[in-house]
Amino acid sequence: MQRRDLVKAVGAATGAGLLGLRPDADWKSWRVNDSRVNALLEAMGKIGRTPDGGYSRTGFSDADIEGRRYVAGLLEQAGLGVSIDAAGNLIGRRAGTSADALPIVFGSHIDSVPNGGNYDGPVGSLSAIEVATTLKERGYRNRHPLWVTVWADEEYGLTGSRGFVGEVPPEELARPGREGVVLADQIKRIGGRPEAIAAERHENGSIAAYIELHIEQGGNLERDGINIGVVEGIVGIRAFDVTIIGVANHAGTTPMDRRQNALLAAAEVVLAVERIVRSAPGRQVGTVGRLAVKPGAPNVIPGEVSLSVELRDLSMEKVDWLWEAIRDQIDQVMTKYQTTWKFNARPPHRGALADPGMKAVIAVAAKSLGLTSRVMPSGAGHDAQYLARIGPMGMIFVPSVGGISHSPKEFTRPEDVVNGANVLLHTILAVDQG
Amino acid sequence: MQRRDLVKAVGAATGAGLLGLRPDADWKSWRVNDSRVNALLEAMGKIGRTPDGGYSRTGFSDADIEGRRYVAGLLEQAGLGVSIDAAGNLIGRRAGTSADALPIVFGSHIDSVPNGGNYDGPVGSLSAIEVATTLKERGYRNRHPLWVTVWADEEYGLTGSRGFVGEVPPEELARPGREGVVLADQIKRIGGRPEAIAAERHENGSIAAYIELHIEQGGNLERDGINIGVVEGIVGIRAFDVTIIGVANHAGTTPMDRRQNALLAAAEVVLAVERIVRSAPGRQVGTVGRLAVKPGAPNVIPGEVSLSVELRDLSMEKVDWLWEAIRDQIDQVMTKYQTTWKFNARPPHRGALADPGMKAVIAVAAKSLGLTSRVMPSGAGHDAQYLARIGPMGMIFVPSVGGISHSPKEFTRPEDVVNGANVLLHTILAVDQG
Repeated sequence: MQRRDLVKAVGAATGAGLLGLRPDADWKSWRVNDSRVNALLEAMGKIGRTPDGGYSRTGFSDADIEGRRYVAGLLEQAGLGVSIDAAGNLIGRRAGTSADALPIVFGSHIDSVPNGGNYDGPVGSLSAIEVATTLKERGYRNRHPLWVTVWADEEYGLTGSRGFVGEVPPEELARPGREGVVLADQIKRIGGRPEAIAAERHENGSIAAYIELHIEQGGNLERDGINIGVVEGIVGIRAFDVTIIGVANHAGTTPMDRRQNALLAAAEVVLAVERIVRSAPGRQVGTVGRLAVKPGAPNVIPGEVSLSVELRDLSMEKVDWLWEAIRDQIDQVMTKYQTTWKFNARPPHRGALADPGMKAVIAVAAKSLGLTSRVMPSGAGHDAQYLARIGPMGMIFVPSVGGISHSPKEFTRPEDVVNGANVLLHTILAVDQG
Repeated sequence: MQRRDLVKAVGAATGAGLLGLRPDADWKSWRVNDSRVNALLEAMGKIGRTPDGGYSRTGFSDADIEGRRYVAGLLEQAGLGVSIDAAGNLIGRRAGTSADALPIVFGSHIDSVPNGGNYDGPVGSLSAIEVATTLKERGYRNRHPLWVTVWADEEYGLTGSRGFVGEVPPEELARPGREGVVLADQIKRIGGRPEAIAAERHENGSIAAYIELHIEQGGNLERDGINIGVVEGIVGIRAFDVTIIGVANHAGTTPMDRRQNALLAAAEVVLAVERIVRSAPGRQVGTVGRLAVKPGAPNVIPGEVSLSVELRDLSMEKVDWLWEAIRDQIDQVMTKYQTTWKFNARPPHRGALADPGMKAVIAVAAKSLGLTSRVMPSGAGHDAQYLARIGPMGMIFVPSVGGISHSPKEFTRPEDVVNGANVLLHTILAVDQG
């Protein structure tokens, strides 16, 4: 990488020299403002609080809109031209010096799950704003346009980033969703123009790069004392709603050998999912997270059970193979208990591999900042997986204390936020000059 | 039985002769009014209907009160002196000719489960009224006082029959129950005097007999073409609310080998209950009917599962033994999944054996009416199990079509209702003259 760094530095020096600035010589010593980035995060932490110390800034809620108003103001203070795109994403733009350079896009989201934390999303969003502010303060003349993005409605379904690449189909926009409100009306509520999503979509090859800083949400970095995760890819997700149908009957009057107990069958399915997922080598995961019993009374044999099966891996082929194995097993369980089953497949989230070049840039940035790093997959979904469809994608992880996320207990230490923001800063500078 | 019948007939003839009546010679030819008893049932079927064709006459509800008003009128028409006792039970009394004879008590309930049927309870209650009407029409002079009872709030917890024998403790009366209303206030709402339940309780030895006609609720009689079930006893019930505690975590970022998944543990518990209950010889049953997962999202590893374990058998000792075996198994499952558990035992329903004499009287009544019968346990709980504490108890079952109960599809054929009412009539006559 030394030769490449040299080339970059030379290139940057040439451009900067023409403009009377000298960013080339010293940018590797640039750092974000430690206390400011954490103060931004703390201020965000006053918006959408729940009684038990968590946050409910769910997409399109009043708290989400209050949070968006706050970050829109910050984007303006950072000297960016702020607008809301068709899908409702907040975008702060700074023009570049090169007429034909594609934009470098970076950011994250600020919406949360119900009763979640203040780190999943805001760490990346506010660090991106801090990076823009630092570049402004340094008088840096970026070659590429810089777009700081705050994606809309990430937690519920990556709505904003899907919209950015044109992957929110009309039928989804028209469907009654949360609180019975159709998605199009939700997007309008935050200033988007749902009818223009398809027309204004960003095509493959339209961005120079997308870089996102995010908390790990797992416990690996913190447990092993690693500063930075270099994401190798975001796992693909397939989820299924399975319904098992037996016969509800009186728990006192129906002999054990005359039952068609949907819960016994479901219990075997739960264990089969675990067994099949663990039987294959690799880092795939599989989870039954939801399970509901009808009628659900202690004195009635369960007549129907609905449950979710969720499978994740970097390889969608492996996910498909696992599901086939699970289906075969469910068929056998149904025969055993004289039950039947059906399933509904949710729209799959295709995973995405990070760009090899971006991974290298992030790893070098961490190293030059004196930080340790590790290449790792992202088990969680992120807006980055949709941005990866239109350009080289890179993601930076910082440790989550105890691996806890989607919880009021979610926490990332201030020094780790600063580390992440600095890696983001150096990554963007390196890409801009690359 | 021939000699005993002869003695009875002679005794009855003597008493009747003194009063100028001759019930002795012909009562075995007496029958209830076929169409009338089914018309009473049909009229009850207009009260408390649900949109999908079921009934919600839950105890203390407006529909329950409307049903009670209807049967109170019928009790009066049957020439009975009607009152409401301390626990809210409707009682229609007819004096007997013998000053020191204990009352013969017979009846059932009219309340239903939410969205249940019109047969569980009403068949026995309205047949009891029909029997009283038939005796009145025949000018029968009963030796024993006859008490026709319509027990309050059977489905939720046998409240009325427990109150009758003084088994509703003050703390239960004071506890906020359904819809947050304390039980004492519910009982007052239907005309009871909860403060007098303990003082007015009926002691052991205070009744000559208790006889209850009820639908089987299982499918055995109908499947095998048997007219009448002679109940040998009502199973005891123990129910437990089990809570399994694991750690909720992100389903994408938590590796399979670092999970403490409460639902995997629960699935093994569900299967263990089935395995243990089926491993012992006998007719015991065990059911996990309720199971709830927290937080219950497809993308979150279950952190907590609560489930019910219900065990029933004629022998409470066997029920206790089964629970001990299940507890041992749960302990092992917890170790395997690094989860913990706790449980809460619901108040047990002690079972009750029918009186051998009563079983014989019912069987003879069925035979003399030309009906087939079978001795069988009751897997369901009934008011009769509390009445058994104060005197000889007998129960008569009639077939449930398809064994379906606690459902809008619950149904007992009109001819089976008539068969049951006639067996009840002859049983009461035989006991009165015995």
